[in-house]
Amino acid sequence: MSAPHPFDSVKDYEIRLASKLVKDAYPASANVHFVQIDRVDPPKKEMKKYLVAEREGLPLPQIPRVLYCYYYTNTLDFNKALVNVTVGHIITKTQLPKGVVGPLLPDDMGEWEEYCNNHPMVKAEIEKLKLPAGYTVRNDPWIYATDDPNETRPLIQFYMYVLAGNGHTESNHYSLPLKFSPVFECFTKKFIRIDYLPGGFDHKTVPTGPWQQVPCVEYHPDLNGETQMRDVKPLLISQPEGPSFKVEGNKVTWQGWEFRVATTAREGFAVYDCWFKGRQTFYRISLSEMTVPYGDPRDPYHRKQAFDLGDCGFGTNGNKLALGCDCLGVIKYMDGHGIHANGEPFVIPNTVCMHEQDDGLLYKHVNYRTDNAVVARKRVFIVQTIATVANYEYIINLKFVTDGSIDIETRATGILSTMPIDENVKVPWGTIVGPNVMAAYHQHILSFRIDPAIDGHMNTVVYDDAVKLPKDEFNPYGIGFVTDRKVVEKAGYIEQAPFNNRTYKIINENIINPISKTPVGYKINMPARQMLLADPDSFNCKRAKFATQQVWVTKYQDHQLFAAGEFTNQSQTDTGLGVWANGVDPVRNEDIVVWATLGFTHIPRVEDFPVMPVEIHNIQLAPANFFNKNPALDLPQSNNAFNKSVLVAGEEDKACCKTNL
Amino acid sequence: MSAPHPFDSVKDYEIRLASKLVKDAYPASANVHFVQIDRVDPPKKEMKKYLVAEREGLPLPQIPRVLYCYYYTNTLDFNKALVNVTVGHIITKTQLPKGVVGPLLPDDMGEWEEYCNNHPMVKAEIEKLKLPAGYTVRNDPWIYATDDPNETRPLIQFYMYVLAGNGHTESNHYSLPLKFSPVFECFTKKFIRIDYLPGGFDHKTVPTGPWQQVPCVEYHPDLNGETQMRDVKPLLISQPEGPSFKVEGNKVTWQGWEFRVATTAREGFAVYDCWFKGRQTFYRISLSEMTVPYGDPRDPYHRKQAFDLGDCGFGTNGNKLALGCDCLGVIKYMDGHGIHANGEPFVIPNTVCMHEQDDGLLYKHVNYRTDNAVVARKRVFIVQTIATVANYEYIINLKFVTDGSIDIETRATGILSTMPIDENVKVPWGTIVGPNVMAAYHQHILSFRIDPAIDGHMNTVVYDDAVKLPKDEFNPYGIGFVTDRKVVEKAGYIEQAPFNNRTYKIINENIINPISKTPVGYKINMPARQMLLADPDSFNCKRAKFATQQVWVTKYQDHQLFAAGEFTNQSQTDTGLGVWANGVDPVRNEDIVVWATLGFTHIPRVEDFPVMPVEIHNIQLAPANFFNKNPALDLPQSNNAFNKSVLVAGEEDKACCKTNL
Repeated sequence: MSAPHPFDSVKDYEIRLASKLVKDAYPASANVHFVQIDRVDPPKKEMKKYLVAEREGLPLPQIPRVLYCYYYTNTLDFNKALVNVTVGHIITKTQLPKGVVGPLLPDDMGEWEEYCNNHPMVKAEIEKLKLPAGYTVRNDPWIYATDDPNETRPLIQFYMYVLAGNGHTESNHYSLPLKFSPVFECFTKKFIRIDYLPGGFDHKTVPTGPWQQVPCVEYHPDLNGETQMRDVKPLLISQPEGPSFKVEGNKVTWQGWEFRVATTAREGFAVYDCWFKGRQTFYRISLSEMTVPYGDPRDPYHRKQAFDLGDCGFGTNGNKLALGCDCLGVIKYMDGHGIHANGEPFVIPNTVCMHEQDDGLLYKHVNYRTDNAVVARKRVFIVQTIATVANYEYIINLKFVTDGSIDIETRATGILSTMPIDENVKVPWGTIVGPNVMAAYHQHILSFRIDPAIDGHMNTVVYDDAVKLPKDEFNPYGIGFVTDRKVVEKAGYIEQAPFNNRTYKIINENIINPISKTPVGYKINMPARQMLLADPDSFNCKRAKFATQQVWVTKYQDHQLFAAGEFTNQSQTDTGLGVWANGVDPVRNEDIVVWATLGFTHIPRVEDFPVMPVEIHNIQLAPANFFNKNPALDLPQSNNAFNKSVLVAGEEDKACCKTNL
Repeated sequence: MSAPHPFDSVKDYEIRLASKLVKDAYPASANVHFVQIDRVDPPKKEMKKYLVAEREGLPLPQIPRVLYCYYYTNTLDFNKALVNVTVGHIITKTQLPKGVVGPLLPDDMGEWEEYCNNHPMVKAEIEKLKLPAGYTVRNDPWIYATDDPNETRPLIQFYMYVLAGNGHTESNHYSLPLKFSPVFECFTKKFIRIDYLPGGFDHKTVPTGPWQQVPCVEYHPDLNGETQMRDVKPLLISQPEGPSFKVEGNKVTWQGWEFRVATTAREGFAVYDCWFKGRQTFYRISLSEMTVPYGDPRDPYHRKQAFDLGDCGFGTNGNKLALGCDCLGVIKYMDGHGIHANGEPFVIPNTVCMHEQDDGLLYKHVNYRTDNAVVARKRVFIVQTIATVANYEYIINLKFVTDGSIDIETRATGILSTMPIDENVKVPWGTIVGPNVMAAYHQHILSFRIDPAIDGHMNTVVYDDAVKLPKDEFNPYGIGFVTDRKVVEKAGYIEQAPFNNRTYKIINENIINPISKTPVGYKINMPARQMLLADPDSFNCKRAKFATQQVWVTKYQDHQLFAAGEFTNQSQTDTGLGVWANGVDPVRNEDIVVWATLGFTHIPRVEDFPVMPVEIHNIQLAPANFFNKNPALDLPQSNNAFNKSVLVAGEEDKACCKTNL
């Protein structure tokens, strides 16, 4: 077995070695309890040398593989260790201050979920419901979030639901929310209290009483009551000569693109060392953080603010993707890794899938004089992962395009997080989506970390506004407009300005495009979005500064990967962009990182229940005066000898040569 | 042959009859010269009765088919006739005032193009170029546009280019623009003058002299110099059991959707009478107008403002789509119609194509307790047309989705309209895209006309902003937010406000959704865009009021189809939304029309030359509290028995059941 590439995902034997070294460093009585283990990114300074040597076929420098371990000792002491698994020693191990809470481990969540439902205090509440025969109670353990600066205990809040009495495991409990919500201390499983949930327009709560039976809005095909299924005919995608991509280890080569893909516990996956047509473009692209604050002001909903990467791990909650379900065609899968509390790894099989897709036309021109058409199709290569974070599903697609662009696509689906609502009540912060069930307005705010390497690592961010020329003798008809460029000199953010056509570019001021005579670059097409609605002095905002602006620039530093900081669970302040975007660090012609915040304020529709059709949002990275011409002129022409389309039955005479009546 | 449906496209025999009746109404000496003939939309009042009868299987009322004819008489008199072709008589014929200029006929443009190049004044200029052997001159006839309130002659401006001496008809003349530009009167072919084009930073022009030879940036595969073609493997889409759609006449039935498609001379196509799952949704959807103003302030470029629908006709310039080139899978085509000046029709074959496409996941949820996934794929039905407007191509896709939403997609491609630029000159209103060739910044501003029928014709437009709740005892943590609704009462526009998450909805206040207890509706997802940059008192703006705001509402009136008015060529004012959005007409709970303006300021990239990779822009219409739940629960589950995906070669052992190391 050859040594892993520095960008390779963590290996199972590395996890085993790291957890063994950590356990061995403590007495058995410390009861080391792991919650996350993964590889640390190699130092960029060393990696730059490595990558140059790799491209030039020279001997490769040794870069040790380092893992981080998050773990608890003595039940409630939270620690972090860095372990060099190449030589097999612990680099550092640190106990973190009280109040720093680690990401939650799925195994633990499952255990607490069961524990909660069997706790006497909870059982007593359940009994008061006097549920009909067959009906039971299910709970979703929820991130506790933050409302009290003095709270340092790791806590978990359980939202309780009725599980309908149909005896089916897939019944949609989110349709039947209950009005009490227990809180426990993590790890000690100490009962803290029960929060009662309002059902009317205001904060008023009532003691638990008999549950009023209402129909459950089901999504599972066994239960959803759909008897007339739509007649969808198969649409098959085949690649009889095989796919156009090649994957060796974790390196993908496709249509001029070269990059490496690694699965990670926190981000799902990251893409490294992207080149297109022999030109360096990006060092690393990944989802960095996501926060989901809710707008219902009532206790305890004010604490609903999950950080889906930092609090629980996007990769840790990654789906096992299935052939023919999650993508079509010829598929290459990659596995992820989870861990158990004892430090044993397990595989999350097929958590990333990769395949090619046709996406309509890439370019076309018809010379009207001769009717000759030049036409090429748009082929994309998709790196996809899907995470289930309790109720919601997030689909992240990184789409590489044959014209040198990259489309970062987010699809939100899954099930709304619901609240009880009394009959004949409406609230201005939520939509009634079923009988006695309300879905509060909320926001999904995602940060994508884009570490550019546009023809090298010394890059600059500029933004161009399209502005009117004054009406004067130079512009007598008042129709002229030009672009006005601003350069980002210091670490910070740039405000969105869609009505100025504000366009962000990452350029390399050291390399001039010989055609345009301007610096080479990539532009970032960022849709203008509402950012965090919460007050600037709210915990929601203090914990997620990244969610207040859409475009951030920082100077590159090793280990600055996560927009809201390393530890987000029950955090009180942002230790990420809120600190790094300091207005001081020089970012012009430096090694920089761009953070693109995509947000959508989700005002639920009835149609989003009981399972939500995807909401799709995109950020595009496109070469802008990077190449000397359209870099896709070397694509084959689109024709039917290649594509083998057919006419609908009965119209086979309708060939393309009919030009007269 | 049965009578055509009122929404059917114009028939060739109808064009022949209308043109004959018009010609017969004039003496031969009037020399009737047609420029556009097409069907007029039936009066909605009558169509409503017709459609009700049609759905209920009752006897259908007679609705006469009416055609409009635009034509010149006595060379320069511009006329419009309305002809009832069901009974065969002219309803009205009117000579339009001097200064009203009709859309241009492709046949005429071709004739004038040749005439220009052979005119002695032009030949004299060409001679001064002293072109190398084999090099010739080609021109693009351009819409003259407007800069003089006293100009009433129909004019045409020719932009001149060198055609490289390679003897190939597909050589890219746009790479080699010349510095003189003749203007002629239309129809009389009278020479007016030659405009000289600046080559430096300012307005200065120089007399024509010898052409300085530079390389031509070619796009055609025979010429573009690409020798190492990319190895793209076929990706085939097949539907072995046939497609899921059915087309009878012009009526499409697919996955709960029912609608009619008609090709039109001006719009390309329109979609009529849309229903989804037995519910009425839209009466008519179409592209309404597009204007393309350029930002180069220098004479004569200040006049570059084409109206691609009104000035020349999107359908008239529609591509003949080819099997396997413009879309993949099982394809249904529809033809369009063009005319010759003598009123004879001809077929534009396959100008609309329709097919199904897979678009990734529509919804997914995994119950993490059981690992059971519910997953359905997103299938779309695409109605596509492509128009070539001289240099540019526009691809319009109306995508119907299985969840009741409609995605209106525009893809811009083709070749930049270019200007000469001297060596060592840069200008702030353009990008140098090749040797001595500059592409000026410009805007593409499209208006889509959405005639809603949300559960009937009485509809209302509202817009919802997501706004913070004040921090007080009701919202002590400062995290609450609600929606604030405004109702549009009078015809006018609504300003975009992406940072308020402003969401536009077309609702029916007479029908309350029983789940949400709010009016049923569809929402319009409109990306925030920069609108027209030209001064409010410029001709660019006066002619295209629709291009100044993104969302307009008017009261429905028959024959109000085109956002900038009926006649745009050399127009001086907007006779469309500028008049109809009058602040007076009541539009609440009325039969209304919504006009959605999509714009993009195009700052050309070097990569956009010599042929431009698509820029894609979308507007989405989605049910919002229209249905009682997700209307796509009746889709079959996605699985590989149905989808037949395969693993990449050599990984066939990687099935979905591997769960341990």
